[in-house]
Amino acid sequence: PSLPGAGMNGNGPSKLVDPLEDPLPGVGTYEDFNTIDWVREKSKDRDRHREITNKSRQSTVALLHSVSDAFSGWLLMLLVGLMSGALAGGIDIAAHWLTDMKGGVCLIGFWFNHEHCCWKSNEATFQDRDRCPQWQSWAELITGTSEGAFAYIVNYLMYIFWALLFSFLAVTLVRAFAPYACGSGIPEIKTILSGFIIRGYLGKWTLIIKTITLVLAVSSGLSLGKEGPLVHVACCCANILCHLFTKYRKNEAKRREVLSAAAAVGVSVAFGAPIGGVLFSLEEVSYYFPLKTLWRSFFAALVAAFTLRSINPFGNSRLVLFYVEFHAPWHLVELAPFVLLGIFGGLWGALFIRANIAWCRRRKTTRLGHYPVIEVLVVAALTALLAYPNSYTRMSGAELISELFNDCSLLDSSQLCGYKQVTNTSETGVGNSLADRPAGAGLYTALWQLALALVFKMMITVITFGMKVPSGLFIPSMAVGAIAGRLLGVGMEQLAYYNHDSFIFKGWCSPGADCITPGLYAMVGAAACLGGVTRMTVSLVVIMFELTGGLEYIVPLMAATMTSKWVADAFGREGIYEAHIRLNGYPFLEPKEEFEHSSLTVDVMRPKRSDPALAVLTQEGMTVGQVEALVESTHYSGFPVVVSQESQRLVGFVLRRDLLISIDNARKRQEGVVSASQVVFTEHAPSVAADAPPPLRLRGIMDLSPFTVTDHTPMDITVDIFRKLGLRQCLVTHNGRLLGIITKKDILKHMAQIANRDPDSILFN
Amino acid sequence: PSLPGAGMNGNGPSKLVDPLEDPLPGVGTYEDFNTIDWVREKSKDRDRHREITNKSRQSTVALLHSVSDAFSGWLLMLLVGLMSGALAGGIDIAAHWLTDMKGGVCLIGFWFNHEHCCWKSNEATFQDRDRCPQWQSWAELITGTSEGAFAYIVNYLMYIFWALLFSFLAVTLVRAFAPYACGSGIPEIKTILSGFIIRGYLGKWTLIIKTITLVLAVSSGLSLGKEGPLVHVACCCANILCHLFTKYRKNEAKRREVLSAAAAVGVSVAFGAPIGGVLFSLEEVSYYFPLKTLWRSFFAALVAAFTLRSINPFGNSRLVLFYVEFHAPWHLVELAPFVLLGIFGGLWGALFIRANIAWCRRRKTTRLGHYPVIEVLVVAALTALLAYPNSYTRMSGAELISELFNDCSLLDSSQLCGYKQVTNTSETGVGNSLADRPAGAGLYTALWQLALALVFKMMITVITFGMKVPSGLFIPSMAVGAIAGRLLGVGMEQLAYYNHDSFIFKGWCSPGADCITPGLYAMVGAAACLGGVTRMTVSLVVIMFELTGGLEYIVPLMAATMTSKWVADAFGREGIYEAHIRLNGYPFLEPKEEFEHSSLTVDVMRPKRSDPALAVLTQEGMTVGQVEALVESTHYSGFPVVVSQESQRLVGFVLRRDLLISIDNARKRQEGVVSASQVVFTEHAPSVAADAPPPLRLRGIMDLSPFTVTDHTPMDITVDIFRKLGLRQCLVTHNGRLLGIITKKDILKHMAQIANRDPDSILFN
Repeated sequence: PSLPGAGMNGNGPSKLVDPLEDPLPGVGTYEDFNTIDWVREKSKDRDRHREITNKSRQSTVALLHSVSDAFSGWLLMLLVGLMSGALAGGIDIAAHWLTDMKGGVCLIGFWFNHEHCCWKSNEATFQDRDRCPQWQSWAELITGTSEGAFAYIVNYLMYIFWALLFSFLAVTLVRAFAPYACGSGIPEIKTILSGFIIRGYLGKWTLIIKTITLVLAVSSGLSLGKEGPLVHVACCCANILCHLFTKYRKNEAKRREVLSAAAAVGVSVAFGAPIGGVLFSLEEVSYYFPLKTLWRSFFAALVAAFTLRSINPFGNSRLVLFYVEFHAPWHLVELAPFVLLGIFGGLWGALFIRANIAWCRRRKTTRLGHYPVIEVLVVAALTALLAYPNSYTRMSGAELISELFNDCSLLDSSQLCGYKQVTNTSETGVGNSLADRPAGAGLYTALWQLALALVFKMMITVITFGMKVPSGLFIPSMAVGAIAGRLLGVGMEQLAYYNHDSFIFKGWCSPGADCITPGLYAMVGAAACLGGVTRMTVSLVVIMFELTGGLEYIVPLMAATMTSKWVADAFGREGIYEAHIRLNGYPFLEPKEEFEHSSLTVDVMRPKRSDPALAVLTQEGMTVGQVEALVESTHYSGFPVVVSQESQRLVGFVLRRDLLISIDNARKRQEGVVSASQVVFTEHAPSVAADAPPPLRLRGIMDLSPFTVTDHTPMDITVDIFRKLGLRQCLVTHNGRLLGIITKKDILKHMAQIANRDPDSILFN
Repeated sequence: PSLPGAGMNGNGPSKLVDPLEDPLPGVGTYEDFNTIDWVREKSKDRDRHREITNKSRQSTVALLHSVSDAFSGWLLMLLVGLMSGALAGGIDIAAHWLTDMKGGVCLIGFWFNHEHCCWKSNEATFQDRDRCPQWQSWAELITGTSEGAFAYIVNYLMYIFWALLFSFLAVTLVRAFAPYACGSGIPEIKTILSGFIIRGYLGKWTLIIKTITLVLAVSSGLSLGKEGPLVHVACCCANILCHLFTKYRKNEAKRREVLSAAAAVGVSVAFGAPIGGVLFSLEEVSYYFPLKTLWRSFFAALVAAFTLRSINPFGNSRLVLFYVEFHAPWHLVELAPFVLLGIFGGLWGALFIRANIAWCRRRKTTRLGHYPVIEVLVVAALTALLAYPNSYTRMSGAELISELFNDCSLLDSSQLCGYKQVTNTSETGVGNSLADRPAGAGLYTALWQLALALVFKMMITVITFGMKVPSGLFIPSMAVGAIAGRLLGVGMEQLAYYNHDSFIFKGWCSPGADCITPGLYAMVGAAACLGGVTRMTVSLVVIMFELTGGLEYIVPLMAATMTSKWVADAFGREGIYEAHIRLNGYPFLEPKEEFEHSSLTVDVMRPKRSDPALAVLTQEGMTVGQVEALVESTHYSGFPVVVSQESQRLVGFVLRRDLLISIDNARKRQEGVVSASQVVFTEHAPSVAADAPPPLRLRGIMDLSPFTVTDHTPMDITVDIFRKLGLRQCLVTHNGRLLGIITKKDILKHMAQIANRDPDSILFN
C-alpha cells in the first residue's frame, strides 16, 4: 500500500495524484526559522499551473478558473496597491496631526492639524496661513499668552510631555502586541525574500501595531523616518492579501514574488516614486526578481502612488512633502563640491554603520537590552530636550528636508533665505533679483543652527535606530546630508559672490547671474548620505530624479552617490541592512558580492575529515525502527538515500520533517506498520517473507532529483548555484559516490570564517 | 610530464599555473556559431581577479594594477557612452541632411540641411523659417519655378531618384563589405548576449558599414527607423572598445556584461531616455544582468545621453525629435479609448509578426532571396512612388510622429490643427481658445491623408523589415500607432464637441473646456503598437515617460501597453525579435517563458532508448589512438570521462576542441607521445611497463565539476538550471551512474517538438 504521493517535483508516483490537494497535512511545508527550497516551491507551482491548464480544456467552469487564476496576480497587485496607498495616506495624515499636537491644539476641532485648522479659519489671510487665532499653542491655552519666558517653558515642557507620551505608547504597544513591529523591517524582509521563514513577521497584528506605533514614533520627534517601515507595512498588506488566493497562500515562492512587488509599493508611497520603488526592490531587497514581477511591481507601485495622490495627504496634490523644482542649471566646476559631498556621505555612512552596529551589539549583550521601555523614554526625552530650542531640529525630519531642498524665491520668509537685498542694480546692469546675494544676519543665524542640528542629528540617530519602536533610516540620513549640503551650498554661493572674478567662477558666475543653487547641494548631500548608509545607487538616483522630474540633475546625483558608495565600500562592503542581518544571525547569502576565496567544495562540506560518516538511509533494507533511531540520533534536516552502504551511489533525498510526519501517519493509520517493517524507497517493493510485516513505501516523499556537485567544484561556483537556484542544501559526490552534504548554513559559516568572524554567529538554517 | 594546466575552474593542477597567461593557444576558447559556457567563463574571471588581488599585496605596481583593473569597467563604460553618443549625433545630423536632399539643395552650401540653410540665411523671418530663397527645390533649380504640374513632376522624379540611389548604395555596401550590417540586429544581439558566438557580428567593419548604410537607408525614405540599429551600433562600439582591456577581451562572459550595458546606451541615445534604456536592456535583450551591470549601464546611458545633447543634433537642446508637453489632464472615461488603442496595437502587433515572418520565410525559401539588391530597389521605388503624393508619408517617420504627438497651439499652422475658430465666445462665456473646436476643412483633409498613410505604412513595413539594409522597427510601429491614435483622438474630440451634454462628457468636457488632447491619443497609440510588436511593457512606459517627463500620463500608457501585450500574447507569445531568432535557428533559451510540459529529463537526454550508448572516455586505460578514433567517429562537442566502462561513475567532462588541441600539441612537442601512449585523466599516473611509451596526462583540460542532474528531474527544473546558470550541456545520472547527456540544443529541439514545430529548425549548438 503506497502512501498518497507528496506531489513534489512532479516525479513518478506523484503523477498519479492531484497536486492541487495536500496529500498529508504538513508534508511539503516548513518549520519556523527555516529556509525554503525555491526549486521545490517553483516546481510545485508549475505542477499546479499545468494541472489547471490541462483541466481548462475540459469544461467552461475550469476554463474560467484558469483565466481567473491567470489574472489573480494582477488583482492581488491592485489590492496591494490600493491598501498600501490608503494606509500610507492615513499614516501621513495622522503623523502630521500628532506632530502638530506637540505644539498646540486647534480650537475649532482638536482633530485638525495646524495647517488644516488655519485653512478652516476664515480670519487667516493667504500669506499668514501659519498664524491664526484658532490654533493655540499650549502656552496660550494654559497661561493665556504666547510671549515671554514662562510661555516658552510651558511650550517646552508640553513638547517633552507629548514626546514622552507618544514614545511610551509606541514602545509599550510594540512590546505588548507585536514584537516584530519594531525597527525598519527591511533587514528581515530582505532575509524573508531570500527564502527564510519568520512566522508572524508579516502578520495582521504586526500590520496593525506597526501602523499605529509608526505614527506615534514619528510624532514623538525621535530621529527616525516612516519611509523604511512603510516598506514593512506594504509587505504586511501583501502577505495578508495573499491569503485570499490559493495560488499565493500555499506557495512560499509565489508569495515572495508578491512581497518583492510590495517592497516596491512601499517605496513608491514613501517617496512618490513608482519607478524608483521598483528599482529599489530590484537593487536592494529582492532575491528572486523575474520579469513578471517587474511588470507587476510597476503596476502595483503606480496604483499605490495614485491612491495616495487621491487621498492627497499634503494638500498640494504632490505625493511627497519635499517635491522640488530648481531653476538654474549647474556648472561643471560644481562637480568638485558634489564629489566632496559624496565623500562626506560615504564617510558618514561607514561611520554610522560601525557606530550603530556597535551600539546594537552592546544592547544585545549588556543589561541595556533588558529595559527597552526605559531606553526609548530616555532617548525620547533627550531628543525632545535638545531638539526644541533649535527650530531646525524641532520641526519634523521631512519638513526639515523640504526646507533645505527649497530654492529661495524673492518673497521667501524663511530664515534660510535671509539674504541682504542688493537694491543697487546699476552696477551689474542686470538686476536679476534671484541672483546670488550676500548673506544677511538671518542666514548666518540659520547656518549656526544648522551646524548644531547636524551634530545633534548625527549623534542621536546612531542610538535611535534599532530601538524597540518602528524606525526608518531614510529621513534621518537624508536630513544629515541635506544639512551638510546646504551648508556647503551657501558657502559656495558666498564664495562665488565675493569672488566673481576669480578664475574658477569667471565666465559662468558673473554678478547678477543666478549661478549656485544651495537647495541642489542639499539634495545632492541627502542622496550621498543615504547612499553611504544603504549603498543604493541607481534606485536612489531615480528616486531623486522623480522628486525633481528633470534629467538635468542626474549627473550631480550620480557623481555624489557613486563617490559615496566607493568611499563607504572602502571601509566595509556591507550596507546598514546587511550589517543588521548579520547582527541577527539570519542565513542570508548576499547576491551582490562575489565569493572571492579559492576553497573547494570538499573543504566546506560536512562531514569534515575527522567527523563520523554522513548519516544516510539506504533505499531498502532499513526498518522503521532503524530509520527512527537514525533520525532521533541526529539533528539534520534531511537525509540522502543511497543504493547501499557499500556503493554509496545516490538515489534521492528525504527531509526529516516529511519523514517523521509520514512514519507517524503510517503508524497511526496503516495496518501492520510496526518498528520491524521495512522502509522502502525503490519503485518496486521487494519481495518479503510471508510472515514479515508489510513494508512502508516512502518513495513519494523522496526528492528524486537532489542537486549534486562534485568535491572538486570550486566554492565560487557552488555559491553561485546556491544563489541562483535558491538551494537549501546540495549533495557532494566524488567519482559518482556520495561524499557529503553542503548547506546554506555551511557556506555562510565558511564565509564568516574567511572574514575572520565568528562562524557561530549564523544562527539559523 | 603534465601539460600546463588550462586554468579552468580553478581545479587542482591549474592552481600551480598563472591563470593570467593562456596555457595553450586555443584551449578554453570557442568556435564560431557555438555557445559559451557561462560558468567556466565566470570562474575564469574570478580566478583572474583573485590572482590580481593576491598580487596586489606584494608591490605598489601590482596594487596600482589592481586598482586600474577595478576601474577599467567604469572607464570602458565612459568610452562606450562617449563613442555611441557621438556616433548617434553624427547619424542624426547626416540622416537629416540626406533626407532633406531628396527635396532640394541649399545654395549657400550643399552641406546644410533645409532648416540649417534657412537659419544661415538672413532673409528668412522667424515664422517663415521653412521658406527661404537659399533653399531651392530641385524643380526650382532645374526648371526655375516651383509652381505647376511640371515642377511637381520634376520634384517627384528627383525624390524617387534619390530614394533609389540611397537604397542602392546602402544595399550594395552591406553586401560588399559587411553582410552582418543588415536588419535591426536586436535578435542577433539577444542571442549573443545569451551566450552565442557570431564572429564579426560586432566587428569594426560591421560598425563602419552599418553607420553609413543606416544613414542612407533612413534617408532613402524606406519605412524603417534608426532606433533599433543604434543598439547594434552601440554594441559594436562596446565590443571594439573591449579590446582595449584584457579583462574584457579575453572573457566572453565579462564582454557580454559590457554588451548588455551597450544595449541600454543604444536606446538611451535613440530616445533620449537613459532610464528607459537600462530597463529595455534588462527587460528585452539581456540574459545575464547582475546588479553591477545595472549601475554601469545606467552610467554609460547617462554619458551617452549627455554626449548626444552636447552635439545637439536637432538644434533644440532636446535629445529627441518628438519631445512633447501636454497641458490638459486626462479623464477616467478616456481609459476606454486608450484600451481600444491597446487592442488595436495588440492586433496589429500579432498580425505584423505573422505577416513579416511569413514574408521572411518566403524570402529564405524561394528565389526572392537571391536578388536582394533588386528587392531593395523595387521596395524603395514603390515606397517613394506611393509616399510622395501624401505629405504624411513623404516626411520622415520621426517627423511624422513628432507632428502627430504635437498638441495644437493657437498659432499652429499645421493641417492637423485646421480647426474652425469659434470667435463667438459669448455663448460659452469662457473663451478658452485652446478648447475643443469643430474640425475645419484642413483637418478633414488631413484625416483622409492620415487614413491612407496608415494603410500604406502597415503594408509597406511588413515587406521592408528584414531586407538586406539596416532597418529598425521602432519608428514604423510607432508611426502606425500614432496615426491610429491621432485619428481616434480627433474623433473623440469632435464627439465631445458635438455632444457636450451627453452623459459621458457631462461634467468634465463642458463647452470651452480643454478636455481632449489628440496628441496624447497618438502617443498612447504609438506605445500600444510598439508594445504589440516587441512585447515590451515597463521599459516602453518608462521611455514614453521620459519623453513627456510627467507621471500624469503613465496610467493611460500602462493601460494601453498592458492591453496590447495581452491581446498580442493571445495570438502567439513571441515578440518580433524572438520570432526572428527562431526563424534564423539560433539556440536561444527564452528566459521569460516557463517550461510548461511535464516531461522528465530522461525523455529529452541523449542517447535515446534506441540509440547506441553514450561515447565516453575512461579515466585510464585508453590510448591516444583510441581516443582519436572515438573523437573522429563522432561529432559531439564534448565527452564525459568515467571511472571505467563497467561502473560508469562520472569523473569529469572534456571538450572536443580542448582534447584535439592538446593531443595535437603533445604529439608535436612532447617526447615519445605516440598512438599507443596511454591517455590518463587521474591525479596520479599509473605505473606503466618499462618499455611502454610515456602516458599523456590530460587532467588539466578536464572539467572536474561537470553539472549533473538525475534522470528523474522534471524538465522544468532542468530548463531552469540551464537558464539560470547559462549551461551548454549537463550530464544525466541514474542512481549515481552516468546515463546520458543533455545539451541546450536538445532542450530547444524538445521545446520545438512540443510546440509542433520542426525540431530541425534549431541549427546551432
